[in-house]
Amino acid sequence: MNDKDYMKLALTLAEQTRGQTSPNPMVGSVVVKDGAIIGMGAHLKAGEGHAEVNALKMAGEKAKGATIYVTLEPCSHYGQTPPCADLIIEKQLKRVVVATVDPNPEVSGRGIKRLRDAGLTVDVGVCEAEAIELNRIFFHFIQTKRPFVTMKTASTLDGKTATVTGESKWITGEEARLDVHRDRHIHDAILVGIGTVLSDNPALTTRLPNGGRNPIRIILDRHLRLPESSQVACDQAAKTWVFTTEHASSEKEEALRMLGVDVIRLRDYSIPSILMELGKRRVMTLYVEGGQEVNGSFIKERAVNQVITYVAPKMVGGKNAPTSVGGEGISSINQALELEVIDVVQVGHDIKITSLVKEG
Amino acid sequence: MNDKDYMKLALTLAEQTRGQTSPNPMVGSVVVKDGAIIGMGAHLKAGEGHAEVNALKMAGEKAKGATIYVTLEPCSHYGQTPPCADLIIEKQLKRVVVATVDPNPEVSGRGIKRLRDAGLTVDVGVCEAEAIELNRIFFHFIQTKRPFVTMKTASTLDGKTATVTGESKWITGEEARLDVHRDRHIHDAILVGIGTVLSDNPALTTRLPNGGRNPIRIILDRHLRLPESSQVACDQAAKTWVFTTEHASSEKEEALRMLGVDVIRLRDYSIPSILMELGKRRVMTLYVEGGQEVNGSFIKERAVNQVITYVAPKMVGGKNAPTSVGGEGISSINQALELEVIDVVQVGHDIKITSLVKEG
Amino acid sequence: MNDKDYMKLALTLAEQTRGQTSPNPMVGSVVVKDGAIIGMGAHLKAGEGHAEVNALKMAGEKAKGATIYVTLEPCSHYGQTPPCADLIIEKQLKRVVVATVDPNPEVSGRGIKRLRDAGLTVDVGVCEAEAIELNRIFFHFIQTKRPFVTMKTASTLDGKTATVTGESKWITGEEARLDVHRDRHIHDAILVGIGTVLSDNPALTTRLPNGGRNPIRIILDRHLRLPESSQVACDQAAKTWVFTTEHASSEKEEALRMLGVDVIRLRDYSIPSILMELGKRRVMTLYVEGGQEVNGSFIKERAVNQVITYVAPKMVGGKNAPTSVGGEGISSINQALELEVIDVVQVGHDIKITSLVKEG
Amino acid sequence: MNDKDYMKLALTLAEQTRGQTSPNPMVGSVVVKDGAIIGMGAHLKAGEGHAEVNALKMAGEKAKGATIYVTLEPCSHYGQTPPCADLIIEKQLKRVVVATVDPNPEVSGRGIKRLRDAGLTVDVGVCEAEAIELNRIFFHFIQTKRPFVTMKTASTLDGKTATVTGESKWITGEEARLDVHRDRHIHDAILVGIGTVLSDNPALTTRLPNGGRNPIRIILDRHLRLPESSQVACDQAAKTWVFTTEHASSEKEEALRMLGVDVIRLRDYSIPSILMELGKRRVMTLYVEGGQEVNGSFIKERAVNQVITYVAPKMVGGKNAPTSVGGEGISSINQALELEVIDVVQVGHDIKITSLVKEG
Ligand SMILES: [Zn+2]
Ligand SMILES: [Zn+2]
Ligand SMILES: [Zn+2]
Ligand SMILES: [Zn+2]
Repeated sequence: MNDKDYMKLALTLAEQTRGQTSPNPMVGSVVVKDGAIIGMGAHLKAGEGHAEVNALKMAGEKAKGATIYVTLEPCSHYGQTPPCADLIIEKQLKRVVVATVDPNPEVSGRGIKRLRDAGLTVDVGVCEAEAIELNRIFFHFIQTKRPFVTMKTASTLDGKTATVTGESKWITGEEARLDVHRDRHIHDAILVGIGTVLSDNPALTTRLPNGGRNPIRIILDRHLRLPESSQVACDQAAKTWVFTTEHASSEKEEALRMLGVDVIRLRDYSIPSILMELGKRRVMTLYVEGGQEVNGSFIKERAVNQVITYVAPKMVGGKNAPTSVGGEGISSINQALELEVIDVVQVGHDIKITSLVKEG
Repeated sequence: MNDKDYMKLALTLAEQTRGQTSPNPMVGSVVVKDGAIIGMGAHLKAGEGHAEVNALKMAGEKAKGATIYVTLEPCSHYGQTPPCADLIIEKQLKRVVVATVDPNPEVSGRGIKRLRDAGLTVDVGVCEAEAIELNRIFFHFIQTKRPFVTMKTASTLDGKTATVTGESKWITGEEARLDVHRDRHIHDAILVGIGTVLSDNPALTTRLPNGGRNPIRIILDRHLRLPESSQVACDQAAKTWVFTTEHASSEKEEALRMLGVDVIRLRDYSIPSILMELGKRRVMTLYVEGGQEVNGSFIKERAVNQVITYVAPKMVGGKNAPTSVGGEGISSINQALELEVIDVVQVGHDIKITSLVKEG
Repeated sequence: MNDKDYMKLALTLAEQTRGQTSPNPMVGSVVVKDGAIIGMGAHLKAGEGHAEVNALKMAGEKAKGATIYVTLEPCSHYGQTPPCADLIIEKQLKRVVVATVDPNPEVSGRGIKRLRDAGLTVDVGVCEAEAIELNRIFFHFIQTKRPFVTMKTASTLDGKTATVTGESKWITGEEARLDVHRDRHIHDAILVGIGTVLSDNPALTTRLPNGGRNPIRIILDRHLRLPESSQVACDQAAKTWVFTTEHASSEKEEALRMLGVDVIRLRDYSIPSILMELGKRRVMTLYVEGGQEVNGSFIKERAVNQVITYVAPKMVGGKNAPTSVGGEGISSINQALELEVIDVVQVGHDIKITSLVKEG
Repeated sequence: MNDKDYMKLALTLAEQTRGQTSPNPMVGSVVVKDGAIIGMGAHLKAGEGHAEVNALKMAGEKAKGATIYVTLEPCSHYGQTPPCADLIIEKQLKRVVVATVDPNPEVSGRGIKRLRDAGLTVDVGVCEAEAIELNRIFFHFIQTKRPFVTMKTASTLDGKTATVTGESKWITGEEARLDVHRDRHIHDAILVGIGTVLSDNPALTTRLPNGGRNPIRIILDRHLRLPESSQVACDQAAKTWVFTTEHASSEKEEALRMLGVDVIRLRDYSIPSILMELGKRRVMTLYVEGGQEVNGSFIKERAVNQVITYVAPKMVGGKNAPTSVGGEGISSINQALELEVIDVVQVGHDIKITSLVKEG
């Protein structure tokens, strides 16, 4: 076992916590002394111990003189927990191996400096690419202060989301629908337009065989038309946030608040300000399951980071059958939103294509 | 090397001729004696020697007492060449191993019977599944007397074939366009609607780095509007067949005929009768590169056997942006044309999904 | 994530501790609540907390109502630590998922019973095969009370361990020698004959780039000829145990004891009684790096569980060149020690073949 | 399909003839025109048509203007067949693509020159590495005028070829023994010492489920002790050649000749002169299945090109149990015959290690 092996184990530990650490990154840590592992840990949930704390707790007294591997630079500031850099110094470790520095420009490098100032050896960059990849979303969030937006669409081989008569049930198969629930489970929030609520009255919860975490349900509702009897308003299954304008009815707002719904009025009712507000509210990952119009707005604003497309091996035809992204559309191909396919898998009978929006 | 090994070699030989044997099947043959290969052959082109003829030519005098492996039942009737079954008997082979019987119900089994009647040992069914798969298209043609229809579409991740302004150039990348030319190379005919000719004036030829075979160009042209100055009408690069109705202008027909264009008038101008006519004319494989309307007609008639979908990792949005299949469309999802994905590959930056229409 | 996923994570955690838990098994544990991981742990070293203790420590108060996954049945007896079954009950978990029961027939099933009696749901057998495989050695030790014996040999393609002149240095390459040190690192004890000590004066320590654990050095020395000046006797790098007979010199014994060497006199000086004594002393894994004679004795007694053979791609020839296993030998092939190859890998330029002795 | 694709097909065709072309190389050829394959061929057997002849025969008249792909430079001299270069010129091909030049320094490049002088375009080096690898043995033969020698050994994990009592039957399993017969099938000659004949009276024939080619049986027999009643002397199953000295009994020679055995007397009875004589007799591949002594002689003379080692997962021990290579042996490790492992596969329960002797 060398540095890389131990860091890979730390990355494996971190990876296990996918979906449960938001708005914190996934972080893993391993403590090693005399060639034996004396501590392993991960950060499990925001507000709870950092990976280093868990790993050092397991190591106990033996931590003195040991090496600690961490997938992200140890923190140096008082957050909900005291700084990990201080704990490492206090426990008298000898060496710290870090995969990647903190992405927050305000604190980046401070933890490492503090450790070095205290006389510890610090090596940075072991498995760096994997560590950055692991927390792609967290890095995005820290650097833009907006959630990482994943747009999900599902259509037939001929690009339709429904038949000409509007029938859209069962476009994709059961496995794909289950897969969507797995993706809901690892997102902080899910977003739809009021149109979808009015037409389908969906629950927007995570329904997996073994339960799962419900994301916050976000409704774009310019005129505050959300019915008090809708599932998202009254089922209490998860938080519901409604974005609307300053002009929306106050009585309706009051009625919804009584049901526990959070109504957020924006002076500038637009996708960018909605994302900024979500960022402030610590929503790190947003899963957009919009209809044509909502998707169209996100594409127009280029406010998408990732697209997940389910393609069902069916053809329905129809010049007027709906597609996944509506709105005005981009008029010139060379202005199109460019993506890069990062994964293609078969999910049941359907194909799932995951693409990242190209930067710049 | 056992029976399976030799038959696999015969299948490999057959596979090499993909795209050049139409309307005949791809067939390979190997002759073996005393554990050594004494002949190898394939059927290279309609009108030329069958696989067995080529393999036996190579074997020469040594064929006597040998075993011959053929991927398809040897023929027993006089076609453009004398029956292979007779040749095998005449050359005094001892044993014949056949992958699969002739799919033509009128002659199926006759070649085998003739060989057995002559005292040869005949074993049937070695690598049968692979042999049927290899000639899926030929089997379809023999059994339905209509070409095997492959519809090709190309769209963005959001299902658009062009932007709202109609711009469709460069949806897919260069590799995907090259791949389309490879597919043209292996098809007997390519089909478009007159609309495509009028708007794009395409050549519809195969442009590959090392040349390639041009398919017959088929234009659906109800009102015989094909301009005499269009590329397909006057470039002489490949045959052009125009399907029209009985009511089309005779002068226009004459003008086109002068250019070498074949004008085919149908009393029943419909997809099924066009396919029937193509079958009669020995077109075994048809590559439909239609626009919305033509594709819509094929889907409506369920006259498609395979769909190749290129998905470009781009999003353009637009409620009114066109999609690959138009027309009236199928109104109920459970009436949708159901397919099965048989292959997904990355072609350049794009995804190529190949699906087979489910039978029945 | 389902039961299998969580158990696989627990197995991964356990796997990391290979070589450091002896004479205890490798055990991993994961605590899950509401679809989120709230604790992860492994047993790191004999005498320290069991996997469940570490995982529950991380879970803290949230453990109440949670499910715990453990790769081995939780213990129910007071050892160096209080019973884990009691801890799980006390922390009010709701469900326990166990990969495999305790292999010790005296306590097997008791932990599960105690948990069930306390009203918890206990599911047994998730990833059972992997869990048994993981602790193959521990299971052997518990069931036979003798160490799991791995014989290591290294020879040329023509089966020689040295040339006719006895030259044996550099038979295998550097990578293979490093690999041997990795294997020493994960064994409790290493065994050689006095002949090897007298001729080579080896250190028998683990020399890896990042340190490593030294196994106990065991010398078979019937006549107690071990020189006080030999490395194993005087370098203090690791424990050295010398097995000898009742008739060996007491002065020599005293001299060796002064150096810290443990001299063990056996009435019945034989491989089986040596292994029994090692079992009593909690040696769970024994790595035999014997010369011809020692290896011959182990083979004769069929006292080997696993053989690791390094084959160097060299040929030296020589009727009288030595081979890896000497002694009288087995006279009939059908009495040969039968093994099953479980792994073949290239290590540098050499081949490493790992085989398990067949049971029964 | 580009140049590489066509050459790969030609290599595939060549590969099929492994074991049947000796002393000629395996050669494949494909003729292509307008993107379609119009001829395929391979050289099937020494004395019969070269690959180009077979491929051009299939192409017929259409060869004019076509491109021919050949895995080896077309010949330019009159051998058993007229020069292929002339045939290609005569048939008016336009372009020749060659994988690798002729290895015979006396004629290398001449075929290419003749083609170029006649105005054809010749491209050399497409898939060159694969082509050289394919005919590694032929290239060795042409360059050294001696057969390519493969030594086959089979031993236990502890390097024994038999128990101390000499029992060697069933060391390896049935699959390994079948594999040896497959290797006999692809060798021109098999070589053993007279000792093996006297003790085992082997048939040394190829016994495969579907027959197979028998190699020439070569016996090293210094004192011409080969019994007239031995299988190799009297079964007529294959040619038998006996190497002996000038002093051997003439009556015995006469008796053996009467049985059809070829007795070859060498003034210099040594491995090198035996190999030279075999080279003269067009033996291109030699499979040495010697006992200790014969193998020892080959190793001493470094007269081996490849070693195939079957390792059976058994241990028999025994200081005096025999090993695969005897003789005096090489005394210093750094003088050992150095090899490189090129393949390791499991054959039944045994391991087959194929190694090439390092050059120079
Ligand atoms: Zn921290
Ligand atoms: Zn035929
Ligand atoms: Zn316990
Ligand atoms: Zn030639």
